[in-house]
Amino acid sequence: MTNEIGAWVFDAYGTLFDPLSVRAAAEAMFPGKGEALSRLWRARQLEYTWLRALMNRYADFWQVTRDALTFACRSLEIECEWIQQEELMQEYLRLEIYPDVRDGLNHLQGHPLVILSNGTPEMLEYVVAHNRLDRTFAAVLSVDKVKTYKPSPCVYQMAVEQLHLPPNQIGFVSSNYWDAVGATAFGYQTVWLNRSGAKPEELGVSPGSTVMALNQI
Amino acid sequence: MTNEIGAWVFDAYGTLFDPLSVRAAAEAMFPGKGEALSRLWRARQLEYTWLRALMNRYADFWQVTRDALTFACRSLEIECEWIQQEELMQEYLRLEIYPDVRDGLNHLQGHPLVILSNGTPEMLEYVVAHNRLDRTFAAVLSVDKVKTYKPSPCVYQMAVEQLHLPPNQIGFVSSNYWDAVGATAFGYQTVWLNRSGAKPEELGVSPGSTVMALNQI
Repeated sequence: MTNEIGAWVFDAYGTLFDPLSVRAAAEAMFPGKGEALSRLWRARQLEYTWLRALMNRYADFWQVTRDALTFACRSLEIECEWIQQEELMQEYLRLEIYPDVRDGLNHLQGHPLVILSNGTPEMLEYVVAHNRLDRTFAAVLSVDKVKTYKPSPCVYQMAVEQLHLPPNQIGFVSSNYWDAVGATAFGYQTVWLNRSGAKPEELGVSPGSTVMALNQI
Repeated sequence: MTNEIGAWVFDAYGTLFDPLSVRAAAEAMFPGKGEALSRLWRARQLEYTWLRALMNRYADFWQVTRDALTFACRSLEIECEWIQQEELMQEYLRLEIYPDVRDGLNHLQGHPLVILSNGTPEMLEYVVAHNRLDRTFAAVLSVDKVKTYKPSPCVYQMAVEQLHLPPNQIGFVSSNYWDAVGATAFGYQTVWLNRSGAKPEELGVSPGSTVMALNQI
């Protein structure tokens, strides 16, 4: 790292909390389709945030997550009753943390730790509390304040204002390559947390560094 | 249609020209992988336009298309030599039109016909000429003028200025659901050309109407 890091900022979904941990509930509900449903649900959830941000048609992440689930069920020809959809949505408030998260966060406790997420304040509050991380973070920042989505620079600007630090003194961690790229383009010092050994994308900008687990930072 | 249509505006890639028509060349080059390569190439091409537009990091569609091909090969572990990549890129200038296009456009010739596309002016010029449609269109509009991508409202505004028509007198046709939605949100009268029988997405806005072939408009 070229500059002193003043705080660590983390993406939530896909980085701390595993969106695919809904697959067990989905599989129990729709045997043989849990994996496909959870993957398509997540893929459309992200696509819809990008498209709505570009159209200037913000709807909050709870709505977008519900819309993505509706589409994923329709696309996979799964008949999902209202009550089943509600149950799957509730799963989003109980997402599991990845196995390396607790250790990794402890390791970085010398700095203020902050979440910067597409999620609504309520969604984030629940999932943080569910995983007993209430006291870990100095702040939990939601895009809902600026009514757009990552990787819009408006989102990354939120942590600058919250922390009173210039972008190059903010360390940012995301497992979503495009999010790490957006944060790099904004000026953060970035770490791509590549647990799955995914191939880097081609977006003209690269994350500052890459690790395989959170405690390697 | 509620208002008189003053002109018809068409999306290019996926609507008039088939991006998956590269699959034959890809298959000849990398046997058994042509289908997967052409699909992943197209998927990332779109994603990269959305992400770059959101990051305010515009690169033109030729660059984005090349980047998407680079990633698709990497992801599928295809060793694509420089000259092979050049050959596949050239295929993008020779995309085939869908079988219903010529008839469908003839059917609408009473109005000015316009292309409004993510493609660069050069890419569009080549693919239009390759398909002998040079004399069909009153104008071919490229996002390169406004340096962003669909579904940004700035893109749809271009046809309003070119045609001197209010949005609700512009008929817009796209096979890309999200593009039809973006155009609807902007105020065009829109038609989703759903040749493949795809399921509608959930983006909070719906296209004005849906047809299965261009000559059904």
